[in-house]
Amino acid sequence: LRVMAGVRVVMQQCLSARLQVRLATKDDAMDDAEYVEIGRGCIFYVCFMKGAQIEEMPKIVKSLTSVRLSYNDESHRNESLVEVGGDVLIVPQASLGGKMKGKNVQYHSNVLKEMGEHLYAEFVRLTEREVEERKGLHCSLVKHGTYGNRQVLSVNTNGPFSHVFDF
Amino acid sequence: LRVMAGVRVVMQQCLSARLQVRLATKDDAMDDAEYVEIGRGCIFYVCFMKGAQIEEMPKIVKSLTSVRLSYNDESHRNESLVEVGGDVLIVPQASLGGKMKGKNVQYHSNVLKEMGEHLYAEFVRLTEREVEERKGLHCSLVKHGTYGNRQVLSVNTNGPFSHVFDF
Repeated sequence: LRVMAGVRVVMQQCLSARLQVRLATKDDAMDDAEYVEIGRGCIFYVCFMKGAQIEEMPKIVKSLTSVRLSYNDESHRNESLVEVGGDVLIVPQASLGGKMKGKNVQYHSNVLKEMGEHLYAEFVRLTEREVEERKGLHCSLVKHGTYGNRQVLSVNTNGPFSHVFDF
Repeated sequence: LRVMAGVRVVMQQCLSARLQVRLATKDDAMDDAEYVEIGRGCIFYVCFMKGAQIEEMPKIVKSLTSVRLSYNDESHRNESLVEVGGDVLIVPQASLGGKMKGKNVQYHSNVLKEMGEHLYAEFVRLTEREVEERKGLHCSLVKHGTYGNRQVLSVNTNGPFSHVFDF
């Protein structure tokens, strides 16, 4: 028996990460693919399930930016992302809502695309605001992928220290 | 209300992945760090929780290697890892058992280290056997990290297509 969460986030620590946000056009002469890039910080892979409410987003974003999972080389402790001044890359990842059914995976719990886009936009806006307000002397970046696109991603870590959070 | 699963696996698709399996010694003159590397295939991040039974491992490994999540460029469908002949990188990731408690994360559900090592060794052995037995004409690799170590990892993807499976 399991009560489904409305929002699932996989959080991984990284030294750097690069995400394609625009595919190259077919014209081989023109490499117009576009990327966003972050340095040391966190990747938030995010998925919205049926029942996810936009009113819950502030609390969720606050939790993710406040939880102490980022290693501070000076204090030698885990601190929050905003305390260490880490970057954030937000990656929409609807596949996280998948459930194995025999050899197939079903995504019946996921929200419909329009609702997902709406929730995602709010999640990104709030993360940007939260990091902006609390970044202090750090120059923390918040970058994000495009909802519904394939997320062509490369990551370097010093240990991904992966967590799954269901809100 | 939630019944805890015994084994949690995060599965990500990759084009290539590289994991450090031995740290460099302090001697700067000698870069003796060791790495394992795979090509196109899957990363299994695996965590064992209290209640995980070694008898369940064959079924879990069978599910992970049979679930249809690997894109076949020729058939234009998702097939299983063994059908497409993909590589596997197994990364022990005890952090996946973490639960947020305020700003901290607790790992009380995780198995003790000795039991985790025991389950992990069996998980690796069965994955190697499963891929070896079913690889057909493919030269699929199975590589893995060392239980209990920091997992220094780099990953390139064409879309990680991340899934969380609780067994």
